Amino acid sequence: LYSLELTALPGPSGPGSLIEPGDDLGAIIAVGLRASGIRLRDGDIIVVAHKVVSKAEGRLVYLPDVEPSARAQRLARKVDKDARLVEVILRESRSVRRAVPGVLIVTTKLGFVCANAGVDHSNVKGSDDWVALLPADPDASARTIRRRLGELAGAEVAVIVSDSHGRAWREGTVGVAIGCAGLEPLSDLRGKLDLYGRELRVTTVGLADELASAASLLMGQADEGRPVVHVRGLEYVASELSARVLQRPRERDLFR
Amino acid sequence: LYSLELTALPGPSGPGSLIEPGDDLGAIIAVGLRASGIRLRDGDIIVVAHKVVSKAEGRLVYLPDVEPSARAQRLARKVDKDARLVEVILRESRSVRRAVPGVLIVTTKLGFVCANAGVDHSNVKGSDDWVALLPADPDASARTIRRRLGELAGAEVAVIVSDSHGRAWREGTVGVAIGCAGLEPLSDLRGKLDLYGRELRVTTVGLADELASAASLLMGQADEGRPVVHVRGLEYVASELSARVLQRPRERDLFR
Repeated sequence: LYSLELTALPGPSGPGSLIEPGDDLGAIIAVGLRASGIRLRDGDIIVVAHKVVSKAEGRLVYLPDVEPSARAQRLARKVDKDARLVEVILRESRSVRRAVPGVLIVTTKLGFVCANAGVDHSNVKGSDDWVALLPADPDASARTIRRRLGELAGAEVAVIVSDSHGRAWREGTVGVAIGCAGLEPLSDLRGKLDLYGRELRVTTVGLADELASAASLLMGQADEGRPVVHVRGLEYVASELSARVLQRPRERDLFR
Repeated sequence: LYSLELTALPGPSGPGSLIEPGDDLGAIIAVGLRASGIRLRDGDIIVVAHKVVSKAEGRLVYLPDVEPSARAQRLARKVDKDARLVEVILRESRSVRRAVPGVLIVTTKLGFVCANAGVDHSNVKGSDDWVALLPADPDASARTIRRRLGELAGAEVAVIVSDSHGRAWREGTVGVAIGCAGLEPLSDLRGKLDLYGRELRVTTVGLADELASAASLLMGQADEGRPVVHVRGLEYVASELSARVLQRPRERDLFR
């Protein structure tokens, strides 16, 4: 029987809202797993909502300290957002893709296409004055958690740092992988055969994104207090590839 | 503990490659569940890869019977595909979005944006002469399976008919929902509060797509012989909305 079990670690009482800058997230997850009665095994996968990673890494900005540039002020008027917030978003962005009232979609410095460069108020400090940025290097964040879990729980696991992104063509956000450690983010099916021995057409599956989406079902709104999901039962290929292999270069993108 | 259990029903020996036009897919799934030791409960979800739905519904085309139009012949030369296949794709399409060598992306008559209008050789009859179309009305297919499972297993479940789609901005296909019965495809978070009592920014989650992606992890290449996945543990809102609510109207699409 092929089966997959996903378990969300308890939220506010475990890892979650209590995360503070400097916290050792790997150790907190190890404690949360024990509290949930989960004994980590080789091959398990941990999906972590980026928000708690950002908090643990101190990627927080206090808006009253931010001096918005003239460009941020102009853009803020256009999109009807706080100019200081827009300034923070611009600092995180490589380019602005869309700016209309209420919506600011950018390509982040790491190459992700998302609203507000992932800069977000929710679940940060309960104040409009504080926002969280995306982790500076989500792959490195995933690697650190992976290494700590290896040290503390003695198991070789894969780690995904996830976010919720809007999409072209489709309504609703879905979980996506912005950081990866220990598993092949794109599953390569080239050369595999179908039931009748014919070669499959589809060559790659966005495996890490599908995992982030699966975990998101349990997280609720990705950071609602259940930011860590344990996954058991998936066969995957070990790899140290970056989650950035999931970013499609413009010249190969025929879906835009 | 919040947890989710996904189980793929056994493939070739159960539902899967053996599906023939006219088969009662709901009954076959009920048998597969029993064979897997799963006793269906209210609230369970069944995700079915569209390919077996298409086969059961006889949505198969024998290419030697297809007379390609002049338009199909021109397009076939452009994309370097069989003109009869292109003719079938055009009959399933509302418009052609991209046509370059090897790639033909369309909007289907049902409004899905995907490669080849979902028309596919793999896992059909093991012959280049046969292709499968998408189900004519995937919501109706899901409703029929749902009703049959209610009759045969005595449980009120939700059913998703899934496909694997390529995406803008991201590499690799992911599972998406093309048909739905019994659950709200888009989960509406408007008015929900974060950990600190602030209203969440993100208002809708592509729940049925996340479920299809989660199931896809077990299906392998969506039709590799494990086309049916049973999901238990998800809280969802019952609804009779169509999966087409996941299609984003162009005027609301700022991600393109």
